[in-house]
Amino acid sequence: MKKYPEHKDNIVSLRRVEGQIRGIQKMVAENKYCVDILTQIQSVGAALKRVERHILQKHIENCVVNAVKGKSAIEKDKKLNEIFQLLKKM
Amino acid sequence: MKKYPEHKDNIVSLRRVEGQIRGIQKMVAENKYCVDILTQIQSVGAALKRVERHILQKHIENCVVNAVKGKSAIEKDKKLNEIFQLLKKM
Amino acid sequence: MKKYPEHKDNIVSLRRVEGQIRGIQKMVAENKYCVDILTQIQSVGAALKRVERHILQKHIENCVVNAVKGKSAIEKDKKLNEIFQLLKKM
Amino acid sequence: MKKYPEHKDNIVSLRRVEGQIRGIQKMVAENKYCVDILTQIQSVGAALKRVERHILQKHIENCVVNAVKGKSAIEKDKKLNEIFQLLKKM
Repeated sequence: MKKYPEHKDNIVSLRRVEGQIRGIQKMVAENKYCVDILTQIQSVGAALKRVERHILQKHIENCVVNAVKGKSAIEKDKKLNEIFQLLKKM
Repeated sequence: MKKYPEHKDNIVSLRRVEGQIRGIQKMVAENKYCVDILTQIQSVGAALKRVERHILQKHIENCVVNAVKGKSAIEKDKKLNEIFQLLKKM
Repeated sequence: MKKYPEHKDNIVSLRRVEGQIRGIQKMVAENKYCVDILTQIQSVGAALKRVERHILQKHIENCVVNAVKGKSAIEKDKKLNEIFQLLKKM
Repeated sequence: MKKYPEHKDNIVSLRRVEGQIRGIQKMVAENKYCVDILTQIQSVGAALKRVERHILQKHIENCVVNAVKGKSAIEKDKKLNEIFQLLKKM
């Protein structure tokens, strides 16, 4: 039984992010120019935001929609509250 | 001659971020609950923001201040424009 | 028949925001110190974000939940897509 | 003697923002569709961000540059710290 939607299409992006983080460590270690380091950090941050939005979208389409359609009012409220907590930090 | 300020105090944070990104890949591969994955992504995003601010601060204190104090108006404007470009994407 | 949830509890906050915006215009006209103006702008921005989150939350609890529970798959997808568009700009 | 840079070119934008805020109050009072209200709030937020960036830019070009060029190390550090506090909240 599969409980949660798969997010494996994000693995490639997350591997690229990991590579970029290692690249930034190298730039820092080699004392590269601050602005070039900062540009790289902003690029990684934007990539992470895309993955976040992608997973959130699938979560709403699957888990939240199922909970809303389900019979348990408690489960529905739990899912909605989780979403609201995530939105606060976006 | 050292041209740019050192940011090596950020290496530890960047290694931790790298570890977290690998942890997120594992969570995705193991089909963990979306909300737990999203919480981890938001935590990495916040850690990256802190490193970004840290490096930006040192860059302003060093490179920008030096350019402003320096004799070259072109160099000063270049540094200020770089900062404004970075701020646009923050 | 009332179609949409009421958001009238936000009117007080929106009036306060309007007053703050007028205050900022006055600060600019009177040539006040930039940092004091900027602090006020950031405070208004945070207040607007709170209203935005408040209305979004009620919209999800009402319109989206109703559309998901409803019989029309088209209506459900429309509501979910609207939410995803809003999240992109948050 | 003029102490601070003028930001009067922002008055027009701030008046437009004020008008938009009043428009949003009307939308809320008339029970308009949540997503239309939210789209307007996001548009005002983006307009405010532009004014904020505009004033911050002028502040750096004037006050900060002057403090850095000045003789007082205390004044220079004060200006830089003010900037860092503002960046934290951006």
